[in-house]
Amino acid sequence: MTTLGHLIDGARVAGEGRTQDIFNPSTGEVSGQVSLAGKATVEQAIAAAQAAFPAWRNTPPAKRARVMFRFKQLLEEHADEICRLIGQEHGKIVHDAKGELSRGIENVEYACGVPELLKGEFSKNVGPGIDSWSEFQPLGVVAGITPFNFPAMVPLWMYPMAIACGNTFVLKPSERDPTSALFIAELALEAGLPAGVLNVVNGDKEAVDTLLDDPRVQAVSFVGSTPIAEYIYARASANGKRCQALGGAKNHAIVMPDADMDNVVDSLTGAAFGSSGERCMALSVAVAVGDAAADALVAKMRERLTSLKVGPFSDAGNDFGPVITQAHQQKVCGYIDSAEAQGAEIVVDGRGVQVPGFESGFYVGGTLIDRVTAEMTCYREEIFGPVLLVVRAGSMEEAMKLIDDHEYGNGTCLYTRDGEAARYFSDNIQVGMVGINVPLPVPVSYHSFGGWKRSLFGDLAAYGPDAVRFYTKRKTVTQRWPSAGVREGAQFSFPS
Amino acid sequence: MTTLGHLIDGARVAGEGRTQDIFNPSTGEVSGQVSLAGKATVEQAIAAAQAAFPAWRNTPPAKRARVMFRFKQLLEEHADEICRLIGQEHGKIVHDAKGELSRGIENVEYACGVPELLKGEFSKNVGPGIDSWSEFQPLGVVAGITPFNFPAMVPLWMYPMAIACGNTFVLKPSERDPTSALFIAELALEAGLPAGVLNVVNGDKEAVDTLLDDPRVQAVSFVGSTPIAEYIYARASANGKRCQALGGAKNHAIVMPDADMDNVVDSLTGAAFGSSGERCMALSVAVAVGDAAADALVAKMRERLTSLKVGPFSDAGNDFGPVITQAHQQKVCGYIDSAEAQGAEIVVDGRGVQVPGFESGFYVGGTLIDRVTAEMTCYREEIFGPVLLVVRAGSMEEAMKLIDDHEYGNGTCLYTRDGEAARYFSDNIQVGMVGINVPLPVPVSYHSFGGWKRSLFGDLAAYGPDAVRFYTKRKTVTQRWPSAGVREGAQFSFPS
Amino acid sequence: MTTLGHLIDGARVAGEGRTQDIFNPSTGEVSGQVSLAGKATVEQAIAAAQAAFPAWRNTPPAKRARVMFRFKQLLEEHADEICRLIGQEHGKIVHDAKGELSRGIENVEYACGVPELLKGEFSKNVGPGIDSWSEFQPLGVVAGITPFNFPAMVPLWMYPMAIACGNTFVLKPSERDPTSALFIAELALEAGLPAGVLNVVNGDKEAVDTLLDDPRVQAVSFVGSTPIAEYIYARASANGKRCQALGGAKNHAIVMPDADMDNVVDSLTGAAFGSSGERCMALSVAVAVGDAAADALVAKMRERLTSLKVGPFSDAGNDFGPVITQAHQQKVCGYIDSAEAQGAEIVVDGRGVQVPGFESGFYVGGTLIDRVTAEMTCYREEIFGPVLLVVRAGSMEEAMKLIDDHEYGNGTCLYTRDGEAARYFSDNIQVGMVGINVPLPVPVSYHSFGGWKRSLFGDLAAYGPDAVRFYTKRKTVTQRWPSAGVREGAQFSFPS
Amino acid sequence: MTTLGHLIDGARVAGEGRTQDIFNPSTGEVSGQVSLAGKATVEQAIAAAQAAFPAWRNTPPAKRARVMFRFKQLLEEHADEICRLIGQEHGKIVHDAKGELSRGIENVEYACGVPELLKGEFSKNVGPGIDSWSEFQPLGVVAGITPFNFPAMVPLWMYPMAIACGNTFVLKPSERDPTSALFIAELALEAGLPAGVLNVVNGDKEAVDTLLDDPRVQAVSFVGSTPIAEYIYARASANGKRCQALGGAKNHAIVMPDADMDNVVDSLTGAAFGSSGERCMALSVAVAVGDAAADALVAKMRERLTSLKVGPFSDAGNDFGPVITQAHQQKVCGYIDSAEAQGAEIVVDGRGVQVPGFESGFYVGGTLIDRVTAEMTCYREEIFGPVLLVVRAGSMEEAMKLIDDHEYGNGTCLYTRDGEAARYFSDNIQVGMVGINVPLPVPVSYHSFGGWKRSLFGDLAAYGPDAVRFYTKRKTVTQRWPSAGVREGAQFSFPS
Repeated sequence: MTTLGHLIDGARVAGEGRTQDIFNPSTGEVSGQVSLAGKATVEQAIAAAQAAFPAWRNTPPAKRARVMFRFKQLLEEHADEICRLIGQEHGKIVHDAKGELSRGIENVEYACGVPELLKGEFSKNVGPGIDSWSEFQPLGVVAGITPFNFPAMVPLWMYPMAIACGNTFVLKPSERDPTSALFIAELALEAGLPAGVLNVVNGDKEAVDTLLDDPRVQAVSFVGSTPIAEYIYARASANGKRCQALGGAKNHAIVMPDADMDNVVDSLTGAAFGSSGERCMALSVAVAVGDAAADALVAKMRERLTSLKVGPFSDAGNDFGPVITQAHQQKVCGYIDSAEAQGAEIVVDGRGVQVPGFESGFYVGGTLIDRVTAEMTCYREEIFGPVLLVVRAGSMEEAMKLIDDHEYGNGTCLYTRDGEAARYFSDNIQVGMVGINVPLPVPVSYHSFGGWKRSLFGDLAAYGPDAVRFYTKRKTVTQRWPSAGVREGAQFSFPS
Repeated sequence: MTTLGHLIDGARVAGEGRTQDIFNPSTGEVSGQVSLAGKATVEQAIAAAQAAFPAWRNTPPAKRARVMFRFKQLLEEHADEICRLIGQEHGKIVHDAKGELSRGIENVEYACGVPELLKGEFSKNVGPGIDSWSEFQPLGVVAGITPFNFPAMVPLWMYPMAIACGNTFVLKPSERDPTSALFIAELALEAGLPAGVLNVVNGDKEAVDTLLDDPRVQAVSFVGSTPIAEYIYARASANGKRCQALGGAKNHAIVMPDADMDNVVDSLTGAAFGSSGERCMALSVAVAVGDAAADALVAKMRERLTSLKVGPFSDAGNDFGPVITQAHQQKVCGYIDSAEAQGAEIVVDGRGVQVPGFESGFYVGGTLIDRVTAEMTCYREEIFGPVLLVVRAGSMEEAMKLIDDHEYGNGTCLYTRDGEAARYFSDNIQVGMVGINVPLPVPVSYHSFGGWKRSLFGDLAAYGPDAVRFYTKRKTVTQRWPSAGVREGAQFSFPS
Repeated sequence: MTTLGHLIDGARVAGEGRTQDIFNPSTGEVSGQVSLAGKATVEQAIAAAQAAFPAWRNTPPAKRARVMFRFKQLLEEHADEICRLIGQEHGKIVHDAKGELSRGIENVEYACGVPELLKGEFSKNVGPGIDSWSEFQPLGVVAGITPFNFPAMVPLWMYPMAIACGNTFVLKPSERDPTSALFIAELALEAGLPAGVLNVVNGDKEAVDTLLDDPRVQAVSFVGSTPIAEYIYARASANGKRCQALGGAKNHAIVMPDADMDNVVDSLTGAAFGSSGERCMALSVAVAVGDAAADALVAKMRERLTSLKVGPFSDAGNDFGPVITQAHQQKVCGYIDSAEAQGAEIVVDGRGVQVPGFESGFYVGGTLIDRVTAEMTCYREEIFGPVLLVVRAGSMEEAMKLIDDHEYGNGTCLYTRDGEAARYFSDNIQVGMVGINVPLPVPVSYHSFGGWKRSLFGDLAAYGPDAVRFYTKRKTVTQRWPSAGVREGAQFSFPS
Repeated sequence: MTTLGHLIDGARVAGEGRTQDIFNPSTGEVSGQVSLAGKATVEQAIAAAQAAFPAWRNTPPAKRARVMFRFKQLLEEHADEICRLIGQEHGKIVHDAKGELSRGIENVEYACGVPELLKGEFSKNVGPGIDSWSEFQPLGVVAGITPFNFPAMVPLWMYPMAIACGNTFVLKPSERDPTSALFIAELALEAGLPAGVLNVVNGDKEAVDTLLDDPRVQAVSFVGSTPIAEYIYARASANGKRCQALGGAKNHAIVMPDADMDNVVDSLTGAAFGSSGERCMALSVAVAVGDAAADALVAKMRERLTSLKVGPFSDAGNDFGPVITQAHQQKVCGYIDSAEAQGAEIVVDGRGVQVPGFESGFYVGGTLIDRVTAEMTCYREEIFGPVLLVVRAGSMEEAMKLIDDHEYGNGTCLYTRDGEAARYFSDNIQVGMVGINVPLPVPVSYHSFGGWKRSLFGDLAAYGPDAVRFYTKRKTVTQRWPSAGVREGAQFSFPS
């Protein structure tokens, strides 16, 4: 059984010291081990990135973009292998891993346009004979700390653009499913990144804290849970670093009485149970407006759930796979228990699901809970499992108030046919990413990803146009030439 | 003698409790008193701003802009009065106050363009039949905390754009010279701002901390010294607020051997001694490359300083006025003492200057110190007085290293005629605002103001395009209409 | 009775030679005369503009913008006088003239933002050590030729932005109602435009052709009828000039069965009859989908028309005034005659309307014609009078086909509550300006105005962002500095 | 010997009727034949493009971009083959063909960013509850007509962006060297373009006129000589099409006395003689300021020319190859004859050059002519051959006047070290593409290519950001929802 090391200054580096098991959640077995980098190893990665910075910064943006073009090709060529690595350590079914990877590649595509995106603003004659322009210069060494649930995509939200902007990068992927991130990073080097421009260290809190405290690290991008996001943001900020830290979510869909209910059920099913609900944009609460809509929704969802298949990642016929760990499996089931205890109605119960041949896998079946209220534990906290809650509201305003009162503000959706309702909702709801009949309103790669309230700490959102601003700093040059110099000096009698 | 109160919810509010003297630095006399708001008063202002937000947010941007158009008119009509108030409490000469006010008005002009600046990005067909667009929505209640040295301009960096973007505002101006800020805010109300959209509270740390801790305040803009900026940024960030905090500076000009020396001396004189050097963009260090350049510079500057006039704000024939307080006068002279003690050469000595008829004013004369080195106290710290240091360097690289090694990175300037030198300098220097033959490279209002290193904490710079991003949050809407609905329903036989 | 002359090089110039009567359409009486400039006079104006160009081009954009700020103030201060002049010569009621002037002032407001709008794109390191940026430079002398129906607004679509961009301008307003344009141009000079930057010549085809043929005129903006637009575009293009020529329209509204019919009737009434229908964005055809919608629409419109008041411009209680000339009055009535003859149903008949006390005014009453078909003359041609046609369609597709098959493509509107229908319509309809429940979808001043098909000749639309591109030409600079020059030369031994 | 046909609706189509010989200019031999499409064949291509438009227009931009990503890969994989085809028919040496292809591929790279480039502007609340946004919609069928001198690159300036924007395309490449364009177009289909989206017709004036007159063609892009450009522009414009037509050039470099002369000679040599001077950005006139600069320049250039090698395309050791035809060879020599006759000094004479083994090739040797004046034929007209003229000027102003007085305004360059001279030159010179120490200031693919004066007819430049505007038309939607509809209807008693 192999022990995964690090990627520093263009080469694989074996770990020293502490290690941690990596599991295959589909079987419940240990599939390998990962080194947990100590301070010295992380500092070695930072030093490599620091050393690579001056030359990389001076490489024309179009050349940096060309590495991204090649990187995209390599990602596409190795898609099957990457998806297998994702599935093995994360548990998501191959079609879901493909979707994840595609979304990641789209961010590489966007980074290919960096010469356009880096354009500054040029003003002639800000005063008589004085010009002024802005440049967006890279920061230096940038760190990314990424979660287990999108082991391939979230790193690709970060370093392609950071690097295309001229920065160098240290990535610390999740220690639960680190293999795909490392594999992908090696493809980026193969695509032409000079050694040291992209480094990967595996690790836990010790690695994270080293990144947060080292003065050579200029900025930190983080995606994870809200408590950790808050910690990361506070510590990085206190150390004078630029930071964006994305946290948890509790995404609601409002189902209006005029909604196309078949579309609601189809799209909600994917949005709630896909990837076992382990997505920060998973749709975990459906708020039906009026009992008629609620009853219809619950009836149709109940029926739909009968055909939903949970099982190992390797079987493409499954709809979703296990959750990430045994501990998390128990935590999700605990939320269902609490809902039952607090008076909600368990319409479809995923606890105790058995997958023949994979009895030790970390499975939870698709679960539907009706008559949930705002006070229940299952409503207040993020479950991060294949559990859809139904809340019943008496009006659209009441449904919107539920959303606005919740701690999180990542994504939300309104199901309706009505133009006015859509406009009112998207204008007023206190959530950063809004769908109209789109339950997973993840912005495409040329827009930016960012929740509101306690779902994001920082001024600028992830990927897209905001990422260009996050990974660069503005420099403004004001220029005046004081006297005519050579021009007036160069007066000659006409050549005869 | 009057006691200046606050402006809350559209009306002047008398202070309760603590007060502080306001001085006329030109005479050294107390000219009035200012109330120092307690927590309750500040919370009253926040509550007024919070109440005004929903209606103001929904006011079309073009209508909000029209208030700014009218505000600009009123500022121009009351320019003389405003400049007198500035001079009286700050000490700057009337022509300097005019310059300050003009720069402030330019920010109001830029805010007049807010309908253009708020445009989001619209993408058709991000998927089949799916559209996506971004909106930049206002944050809510925003606070501004501003310094004594530009009592009119720095508030105008902040609230015109914040308000034009749809936010409501609480301003806490400097308690040393608060009158002009309050006067100007009343003009903004007269221009058509609804009550509560702009509020002013006078105060000190208690007021500041209330603003930093109140959960209704969404964002804080600060300009002041670096230690306070750091405190503000850490506390506001820890409270989950958006924050930009601008701190101190030590701005260097490099004088190359090919520079147009008459232009250098003319422009450096204004940049070093204007407003008594109490500007975060004051040019306080001249680095001459080569002894020949240094000798020429020192000789010409020495001669130029003989005609420099210091005196009371009210006499337009003066070049600059007193510093802000007696304590600061002593501090500035202390820096000159230390330079002398540490081996620098005091070429022109402004200590002990006497202004006939204004013997109690807080004056320091224009001071030129040669042969300063990087270890000296006067070099390491920000003096904020009419003192120009000359450092001698052996090469441009050496001069640039001095700048890059300094704690601050606000502004800098290169004097040369050479295109290559200019490009090399502006590309590589670790400073946010760069001048080529422009010693005060303050970006114009349609660019943004921001230093690097410990001169600015935060991701986004002040005023200009960055201010639009700072005072708004991105919302991304993704929209799909699931079935043809009314369109397909509306099939009729042809009317016969 | 006065004869209106020209405004050339900052001064009023009396005309020589030919003149033409100006009428007051409300009374049918001649109210004055206007000079018709010969070639020499127009060339004098062009020469003045040419002479003023170099200095104006070099005036910083922010200073040029400041003239626009002052111009806006003056327009607001003189609004009543301007609206009286408009009404007297055009016939539109004062509230309508106010609306026109407001729309014009909004274009001045947008021009105030020209420093932002002129920003070029700066790219660092397009190659190693090579930078490139674009500048948008003014063209030189620009001409505007404007129609009678918006004597104040359409000139303000053109010259504020042209001038703010650094061009100088020759305006030829409509000879039917030239007084307000001349009055407004004098306010622009009063606001601070140097002599020659804005010139006005009154005239007819001779003046127009001189502008089209003179090689010093770099660009021509035109608004009028399609045949003239086509002539202008062809002749200006053949002469190597940049040209945008806006022509006629036939704007349809589709009324879906789910539309809010009270809103339809209210907003259609203004859109069809306001300004006697003499607007290129007038809504002149309502296409009802289904007989039920058609019947309801016709019934409600018929009733609404009973309270519609036509009369002289000076009575604010009137809804609309006369048409522009007696000839046009007869032409409009001729279209109603033809509709009747070709089998349409005249529901409300505005022919022969009498306005007591103003029997010689050029009035046509509000007219509603049902059961119009695509073959009728009244449908194929632009009527430009207070006549609303109703066409009945069996489906939305059929209604859209009518619009797409029409020669013009200026504006259109869909009345519905349904989000899907709105999206389908706005995506597919072959019209440049689309309203959803907005019958006059004139873009605001910070967007651009432009029809499709034979409603606009040229690549770039009028006013808004497109105007900045139309009134400037792109220059791209690519810069490299070949060797270190002074930088490497400036190496000295360290000063000892 | 094969006869090259057309590419229509996804398949090769053999020609009917007329044909024309294709030469290998390196040997002077006929290498093949090309069909000259008649009207019917061109109309077949237009019909295919028209049929493919609706589906392609509705394909999401990101999917269209993905075809461009794949197209880039294929171009890189087939680079050697393409360059051989270019060299064989055009004559340019393989390293020059590689350069051409790279520049072409960069335009494909830029088109990969089309989702970003197509973003419209979204404005919330242009009025109360009213939103407005712009969309940039494709035009339909677009035609491109391209010259012999860049048989691969100029088509790639056009159709990648036109197609990425959603248009369909008919290309008519030069009939002198059509093979590479056809080969490349087939790669574009292989990359995933649906049949009919890109069509190629070979032909001459009959094909061109069909494209100019057919009403289904919405826009025409042309690159060639000025007389043809003028014809194309006038005819397309008269037919109501959008048109951009790029013509000839006479690009001057000014050599200032302070220029780095070694850099001047190195870079001028490539710019004047590369590709035998058959480039619209070739640097064909050097204006030396002062006799000293002129003498030094001529002496160094004369020496440099001794090592310049002319010969067949297939030998990578050659610096440049033959000109395109025997007729053109004679025309170029005729210009040298005329210079001699009119009194210029032929410093290096390329007439009668012999290339051993390739005696029938169309060669002209590198030619340097001194003491040229503005009245000479060789100065007034575009030579399009390996001939560099030297003009001597007494001042920079005089040199700039030469440039401004010339008919063309494509590119120009200033050689200097002086920042002030560079700024003065780039600001004032009446030329669209300006180099500072860059003799071929061709804008990179993310800026736009466009000359001034008679070098470009049209409002918008080629490729880069302007191409997005040229290949799309603006649609502005204004939307309001009249009443709350479903939202207010959906009020229920709270579920009990």
